[in-house]
Amino acid sequence: MSRFWSELAGNLTPYVPGEQPQGTRLVKLNTNESPYGPAPGVLAAITATTDDQLRRYPDPQANELRAAWAAREGLAADEVFLGNGSDEVLAHAFQALLKHAEPVLFPDISYSFYPVWCELYDVEFRTIPLAQDFSIKPGDYAQRCGGIIIPNPNAPTGILLSLEQIREILISQPDVVVVIDEAYIDFGGESATSLIPRHDNLLVVQTASKSRSLAGLRVGAAFGHRDLIAGLERVKDSFNSYPLDNIAQRAALASLADESWFSASCQRVISTRERVALRLLGMGFEVLPSKANFVFVRHASRDAAELFSALRERQVIVRYFNKPRIDQFLRISIGTDAEMDALLEALEAILAA
Amino acid sequence: MSRFWSELAGNLTPYVPGEQPQGTRLVKLNTNESPYGPAPGVLAAITATTDDQLRRYPDPQANELRAAWAAREGLAADEVFLGNGSDEVLAHAFQALLKHAEPVLFPDISYSFYPVWCELYDVEFRTIPLAQDFSIKPGDYAQRCGGIIIPNPNAPTGILLSLEQIREILISQPDVVVVIDEAYIDFGGESATSLIPRHDNLLVVQTASKSRSLAGLRVGAAFGHRDLIAGLERVKDSFNSYPLDNIAQRAALASLADESWFSASCQRVISTRERVALRLLGMGFEVLPSKANFVFVRHASRDAAELFSALRERQVIVRYFNKPRIDQFLRISIGTDAEMDALLEALEAILAA
Repeated sequence: MSRFWSELAGNLTPYVPGEQPQGTRLVKLNTNESPYGPAPGVLAAITATTDDQLRRYPDPQANELRAAWAAREGLAADEVFLGNGSDEVLAHAFQALLKHAEPVLFPDISYSFYPVWCELYDVEFRTIPLAQDFSIKPGDYAQRCGGIIIPNPNAPTGILLSLEQIREILISQPDVVVVIDEAYIDFGGESATSLIPRHDNLLVVQTASKSRSLAGLRVGAAFGHRDLIAGLERVKDSFNSYPLDNIAQRAALASLADESWFSASCQRVISTRERVALRLLGMGFEVLPSKANFVFVRHASRDAAELFSALRERQVIVRYFNKPRIDQFLRISIGTDAEMDALLEALEAILAA
Repeated sequence: MSRFWSELAGNLTPYVPGEQPQGTRLVKLNTNESPYGPAPGVLAAITATTDDQLRRYPDPQANELRAAWAAREGLAADEVFLGNGSDEVLAHAFQALLKHAEPVLFPDISYSFYPVWCELYDVEFRTIPLAQDFSIKPGDYAQRCGGIIIPNPNAPTGILLSLEQIREILISQPDVVVVIDEAYIDFGGESATSLIPRHDNLLVVQTASKSRSLAGLRVGAAFGHRDLIAGLERVKDSFNSYPLDNIAQRAALASLADESWFSASCQRVISTRERVALRLLGMGFEVLPSKANFVFVRHASRDAAELFSALRERQVIVRYFNKPRIDQFLRISIGTDAEMDALLEALEAILAA
C-alpha cells in the first residue's frame, strides 16, 4: 500500500471481470456477450457521426434516449435514469438509495460486484442464502433492512423470479428500495417495470450490453418512481455530468427503434440455450433452469476447475467461480450454434478422456 | 427529500454544467469546446466500427490507448490511467488519493466541481485565495494538508503556472499528492508530465475533450507514478470495470496518431484568442492573461450579468458565474473566427446601446 492512497483505496478488494482476450480465436463463452451483432440501424447511426457530435459535449441528460426508453416501458422520461453501463447505474444506486443505517440484503450467490460497491461506499450488507435448489425465497427478504438488491434472473444461476414473487418482496418492504437487476431479463423473463406505477420503492435496472448486443458501448438504465430517479441524478451530477457519450446515446436509440431485430435476436439465444441444455443433460451435467443467456452447470463426476482448464486448452473459455457452494459449477454463455457445437464437442472429448 | 434517499444523496449540491442546447443556431461559447472537428482519422476509426466491437466488452484496461498516450508523454503504460472524461478521472483521484485526515487545498476561484467531489466522498477541503491579480502563489500551498489540486492553466481565469512554480509546490509537499489538472494545457502551456519521473507525488490529469475536439466521446487521462495509478485503478475497478467504450478507445487512439492536426488545431485557437483579446481590450474589457481556449473578461463599466443576458438575447451564449470575486466576469470560449466576430459585433452593439 502506497502512503499516497486513501485508507479506502488501500482497503478495497476490486471486482475482477471476466477475461477479455484481445484479437484471439478463442470460443469466448465467459462474459455473457451476445453472439449476434446489434440491430442494423446501430452501425448506420454510428457511421453517421459528425464532427459536431464529437467536438461538442453530449446532452448531459440524454433526454432523447430517456424519452425513447421510457416510452418502450410505458413510463415517463423522468422515470428513467441512464448510465455508463448498468454497473455505473448500480454503483450510483448503492450510494444514493441503498446506503442506510440498516444493512442491504442480497443473495449469497449473486452478482459478485454487489459486495464491492458496498465496500466502496461503506454500505453494510447481509447476504441471504439461496435455497438448496439455488432458488430465491421471497419470504427470506421479509426482515429488517436498509434495502434489497436481487438480480432477476439471478446470476450466475440463471433462475427466474416471477413478478408475483417480486411483488411479494415489494409489499413486505414498503419503506426500503428494492432494486431488481434485470441484466438478463430479455431471455425469457418478464420485466418488473410494469410494477413501477404501483410500487414507489421499486428500481429496475437494465442494460443494453446483453440483449441489445452493445457491451462495447456502455449503456445502462434504471426505471422507477421519479423520486428514486432524482436521487440517482443527484449522485450522478455530483460525479460526472456526461457519462454517456454522443455515439452511445445515438446507437442505443437506434437499437430501441428496432423491436423486431430485438425479439428475433433474443429468441435465437433462447432456442440455442434450450438445445444446449438438453445436450448437456445428456452428458451428465446438472443444468439449473436458466432464463438468461447462459447456463450454470455441474457435472455428476468431473471437477469443475479441471473442466474449465481442459476447455481453455481447447480454446473454449467459460467462467468458473472458485466460491463456496458454486465451486463445482461452470457458467457457460450462449454463443452461436456453431460456437456451442464447438463447446459440446470439446466437452465430449474431455469427458471421454 | 425522499425517504428512500441516503443521507448523502440528500445533502449533495450537484455540479451544474454549462448549458448544452440541442440543435439550435446559437453561437455557443459557453463550455470551452473546440470549434474545429477532431483529426480526420477519428471519423475514419469510428466509421470502421464492426459488429464484434459493439457486441463484445471493451478492453477494461484500454491497454492500446494507454500505451500510445504513455509513449506520447515519454512514460510507461502503467503510469497512465484512463477514464470516462477527465471528470471521472478527477472524481476517482479525490476518492483514492486526496481523501486523508488533513484537508485538500485548492484555489478559491477554480473548477467548481472540486468542492462537489469533496462532498460526494466526504473529503475535507480548504480553499486558498488567489492573489489580487487572480494568480496562484505557490508559497500559499506550503501548509499542512492532505493533498493539493490546481488547474493549470487555472479555470476560469486562464492564468498559467510555470513548471518552476509547480516544482516549488511539489518540493514543498513531498508527502501528499499534488494533482495538476491540465484540461487546457495545450493552448499555450507546458505539461507537467515531464516532472513525473522526479516527483512521485505528482498526478497530471488531461482530457481529449478540448484540444482533441472529443468532448462528445468522454476520454480523460491521468499520468503519474505507478503507485498513484494503481490507487486510481483500485477505485475504478471497484466502481465500473469498463468506463471507456470501444469506439472512444479507438477514436482517441486515432487522435493521438495525428500530431500535426493537433498542433495546427491548437495554434488556430491560440491565434484567434490573441486577436479577440486585443479587440476586447479595445472595447473597455479587462482581459486576464489566458493560456486556455477561453478568455475571462470584465468590463470597466458594464455589469457582467447584464452583458450575459444581452448576449443571450442576440443568440450568443457565454458563461457567467454568480460567485464572490468573479461576478463581474464573463468566461468566453474561443470559437471560430466567424463566431468570435459575431460575439464582438454583438458586444459592440450592446455597449453602444
